[in-house]
Amino acid sequence: MNSTRDIDALIDLMAKLPGLGPRSARRAVLHLIRKRALLLSPLADQMQQVAATARECLNCGNVGTADICDICESEKRANGELCVVEDVADLWAMERSGVFKGRYHVLGGTLSALDAIGPQELRIPRLLDRVQSEGVSEVILALNATIDGQTTAHYIADQLEGQVQLTSLAQGVPIGGELDYLDDGTITAAMRARKQL
Amino acid sequence: MNSTRDIDALIDLMAKLPGLGPRSARRAVLHLIRKRALLLSPLADQMQQVAATARECLNCGNVGTADICDICESEKRANGELCVVEDVADLWAMERSGVFKGRYHVLGGTLSALDAIGPQELRIPRLLDRVQSEGVSEVILALNATIDGQTTAHYIADQLEGQVQLTSLAQGVPIGGELDYLDDGTITAAMRARKQL
Repeated sequence: MNSTRDIDALIDLMAKLPGLGPRSARRAVLHLIRKRALLLSPLADQMQQVAATARECLNCGNVGTADICDICESEKRANGELCVVEDVADLWAMERSGVFKGRYHVLGGTLSALDAIGPQELRIPRLLDRVQSEGVSEVILALNATIDGQTTAHYIADQLEGQVQLTSLAQGVPIGGELDYLDDGTITAAMRARKQL
Repeated sequence: MNSTRDIDALIDLMAKLPGLGPRSARRAVLHLIRKRALLLSPLADQMQQVAATARECLNCGNVGTADICDICESEKRANGELCVVEDVADLWAMERSGVFKGRYHVLGGTLSALDAIGPQELRIPRLLDRVQSEGVSEVILALNATIDGQTTAHYIADQLEGQVQLTSLAQGVPIGGELDYLDDGTITAAMRARKQL
C-alpha cells in the first residue's frame, strides 16, 4: 500500500520510543491521526523546537535549552551541596520533591565492567574537578540502590575521601509502604537505621 | 525553570498519547533528546508529513493519504465481500493476516446507549448505501466480541436482513490457546461449534 507509506514510517519511528512496541505505536499513531489538528501538528512542532534547542548542560549534564542550565546558572543554588545522580530523570525526580536546594551532577550512567563503562565514559572526572573548583562542602550520592549504582557510589567515595563531606540517601521503609510487600534487604536496612521516637 | 519550558511542553503533549502517562512521557522525551539527531528530528519531520497528508477514506473510513484509499481504489478487491470492522486498527489487523481479499467498512466505533452513539454517529448509513451501490454479495461482521460490538452487529444484521448474505467471524479456541486459561464463554462457543475431524 503505497499511500500509507508515510503512516507506516511514522509507526516504525514511534515504535523506537521506550515503553512503546509495534502494537502500541500503531495505536498511538491512529490516535494522533484522529486528533491531527489538536495533537499531531502541535506535537510535531514542539518536537522540532526541542530538536533544535535541547542540549546537555556543559557543567552538570542536565538537559535544557542553554549551554549552562538554570540550576548551574542560579547563584541561589550555590550552597555548597552537590547531589550526584545517575540520570537526568533522577534529577527531575529530585526537583519534583523540592527538598534539595543545591546543585546537581548527572553521571550519565553507572560504572559497569560488563558493558566496559569506566569512569572516563561517565561524567566522573568533571565531578572531581567541580568539587575542587566550586567550593563544594558536601557531596550527596543519590545513586540508585542497585549493584551498579552502589559500586559507582563506592568508587566516587574513594576518589573524594578526605576532600569533602560525603553522604548518601537514607534507606528504609518508603512512605505508604507495607512491610509485607518489602524485600528483606529493605527491612534489614530500616531496622538497623531505626530512630528513637 | 524557563529554559526547560519547551521540554516540559513536549512532555505534556507526549503524555496525551494512549499508553503513555506522565512518567513514561518523561522517559520517552529524555530518550528522544539523547537521540535527537537519529530519532527526534526524523520523528518530528514524519509527524509533520503525516499531519499534512493523512485523511480518512471518504468511502470506507480507512486511514491513508488519499481521499479514496488504496483498498477501495483497487479493482482486485471488488470481489463482492465487505468486511465491517469497528476501527482502523481492526482493519490493519485483518490486513496483516492477509486472509481477506475483499473491501472493508470502518464504522468508527460501536453503538452505545450510554455514550449516546446512534447509527448516525457511526458510518452505518454509508454502509447501507454501499451494500446497494457496490454490488456486495456478502457482509462479514468482524466486530469485537464485546457487548457493544455484538449489539452493533445485531443492529446491522437487522438492517441488511434479506438484502445480502450475512456472516460473522467464527468463535472458538485461539491458536496457541490453553483451555485452562480460557473463559467459560469461549469454551462454550468452541464446544457448540465443534467440527468433525
